[in-house]
Amino acid sequence: MTIAQKISASMHGSSWVRKMFEEGMQLQEKHGSKNVFDFSIGNPNLPPPEAFSSTLRDTVDSCGLGAHCYMSQVGYPQVCEAIAGYLCEEQGVAISQKEVIMTCGAAGALNVILKTLLDPEDEVILTKPVFIDYAAYVDNHCGTSRIVDCRPDFMLDLDAIGSAINKKTKAMIINSPNNPSGQIYSKENLHGLGKLLEERSKAFGRTIYLLSDEPYRKIIFDGYQVPSIFKAYSQSIIATSYSKDLSIPGERIGFAAVNPAATYKQDIMNGMALATRILGFINAPALMQRVVSELQGISVDIHAYEKKRQLLCDGLADAGYEFVTPPGTFYLFPKTPIEDDVTFVQELQKELILTVPGKGFLYPGYFRIAFCVDDDTIINALPGFRRVMDRYK
Amino acid sequence: MTIAQKISASMHGSSWVRKMFEEGMQLQEKHGSKNVFDFSIGNPNLPPPEAFSSTLRDTVDSCGLGAHCYMSQVGYPQVCEAIAGYLCEEQGVAISQKEVIMTCGAAGALNVILKTLLDPEDEVILTKPVFIDYAAYVDNHCGTSRIVDCRPDFMLDLDAIGSAINKKTKAMIINSPNNPSGQIYSKENLHGLGKLLEERSKAFGRTIYLLSDEPYRKIIFDGYQVPSIFKAYSQSIIATSYSKDLSIPGERIGFAAVNPAATYKQDIMNGMALATRILGFINAPALMQRVVSELQGISVDIHAYEKKRQLLCDGLADAGYEFVTPPGTFYLFPKTPIEDDVTFVQELQKELILTVPGKGFLYPGYFRIAFCVDDDTIINALPGFRRVMDRYK
Repeated sequence: MTIAQKISASMHGSSWVRKMFEEGMQLQEKHGSKNVFDFSIGNPNLPPPEAFSSTLRDTVDSCGLGAHCYMSQVGYPQVCEAIAGYLCEEQGVAISQKEVIMTCGAAGALNVILKTLLDPEDEVILTKPVFIDYAAYVDNHCGTSRIVDCRPDFMLDLDAIGSAINKKTKAMIINSPNNPSGQIYSKENLHGLGKLLEERSKAFGRTIYLLSDEPYRKIIFDGYQVPSIFKAYSQSIIATSYSKDLSIPGERIGFAAVNPAATYKQDIMNGMALATRILGFINAPALMQRVVSELQGISVDIHAYEKKRQLLCDGLADAGYEFVTPPGTFYLFPKTPIEDDVTFVQELQKELILTVPGKGFLYPGYFRIAFCVDDDTIINALPGFRRVMDRYK
Repeated sequence: MTIAQKISASMHGSSWVRKMFEEGMQLQEKHGSKNVFDFSIGNPNLPPPEAFSSTLRDTVDSCGLGAHCYMSQVGYPQVCEAIAGYLCEEQGVAISQKEVIMTCGAAGALNVILKTLLDPEDEVILTKPVFIDYAAYVDNHCGTSRIVDCRPDFMLDLDAIGSAINKKTKAMIINSPNNPSGQIYSKENLHGLGKLLEERSKAFGRTIYLLSDEPYRKIIFDGYQVPSIFKAYSQSIIATSYSKDLSIPGERIGFAAVNPAATYKQDIMNGMALATRILGFINAPALMQRVVSELQGISVDIHAYEKKRQLLCDGLADAGYEFVTPPGTFYLFPKTPIEDDVTFVQELQKELILTVPGKGFLYPGYFRIAFCVDDDTIINALPGFRRVMDRYK
């Protein structure tokens, strides 16, 4: 082997999302980008809010000496303070800057948290359908993933989770609003999980941490709310980013926040500062830290995503597709009319419609449509969606 | 254990650089920042070049739709192309954009490279005095560090390196200009290393990679040049950043470049793209990628650092300190007049002078002075340096 065996193996079984995204780029070269309907990747198509652009300009204009220097590994104190202030309201508990660490997006946050928590052979529970990179993050830090099923409505299946917990369980990762299902775990569902994790932590005599990945928290519809994870379980850590709500995924800016009630809060914060350094992040990008600190509570126009959801759901329901209407995110996760989701997605691809098979989320029989695209892309793709469905009716 | 054992252990044996930096902040609170002489951390004190500031403003002004979106994991093609163009001249070999990947600084680059290359128990050779975080990077990816001595003039000791290579050796990391010694490995020294690695790769039937960490490449004095690593050894990879030469370490922007002559170039590039994603970097920060692509060959005013070096070296030589005058970087690495460098550094600290003991680089009997500080800090600290030396004369 010339490179690491794991990396070599992962390349061959690469992410379906990226695979479809790359095939899409090839199809666009061949057929012209207007003729290809790319629903493969969650790359937000809405522009950042005007407040982002003006704050970015103002922040750059006011850059003085030291504006781009190293700072504390956890981030600028005033940035952590601004975020803590906003989180108090969002989570409904008192949070201080000492519980917040700035990160290179949510993916950076999760790697930093897992590096801080996991000993070799520790297990981390994930739920299907699963954003498959979570398993890679766990493996990066020598942990093992244990992946359990969800309920048919994509809520957490507490029985399945309860059965999966054992003496090696160190953490669980949840993602709500969920990629790919769009589901938001209810307050009852989350508090049930909190109670379960508390009981099992006691039973096994070790803390089981709950990591809540929440980058879609602000992309919600129909008056739904995302319940507070800090109220649901004391040993919880939030990982999130501004990628989706400010449409700036390329800038890699987010944060982790530790529940102020967590028993070993200070150890975790110190560990995350160290992990940020040795994993090579060093600190979250300086300029963007200062920019997002001014934009607490701001997001892109959610109504625009709501309209896209409506266009897509109406069109697909009319064509005979079955799905749970997503209360959040910009993903729809319909059933495929045949068991083999990969074949179905390939049929869609012949219509130049790019989606991701459920298999890519370890959930065959479904497929994901990322509707963070132009309205016209949705409208013009609907006849193709219908033609493919008609073949299986 | 509530957090990972390795992280917990590392926190207790934390980096001396960070330790002194943090003690410095406490001393500054107590005595006022003007009265503390902080030479502990390599946080460049020169402002970024004017070209950086104007390019940053122009780049922000021209941000259009998609300016902050995800892009390819390796970075924007036009950015990689601009860097490849500059590298052709710097390295004296033909390099294309396909050999360049944008990273979150050099620390991000090294983690991405090591994740790509290392299988469990693979060994990586480091040389003392060593930037100790390299060992943590190797450990992150389940490798083992084998640390060898340098020559008394801080050049590479090829005999020591030759003795350390065995069938488990997968890579070697070098850093030139060197932190903390300030030494630049000569062309002869590097070509000798290249020859050695080539012979041993053949003998053991596996490629030994050479990772060259070069963030101080532009901070050189007295007409010294940093030789091309790509010419010295075919299986080489450069990791670097714009942190030091543009004074923007907080922005986390750098790149890795694979030698176009490397045998498994394409595997390495594909592996690094994957590693960038799964380690949680996803991609280097979008805006800063575009900014640095416009600033190829630009750097802060090196003469300002040269003046600081002169002030410091003249003053310390006069006080009786012994050192190799550094041809590059903003570090000086003098001998301590007593064997116990930690005690000596503590004595300096009583004079409110903060430096880092050689022990922090696994090289006791020396100490590091980061002279990327105001001229006045150097001038005003010299009497204290003299007083402490006088006690040991």
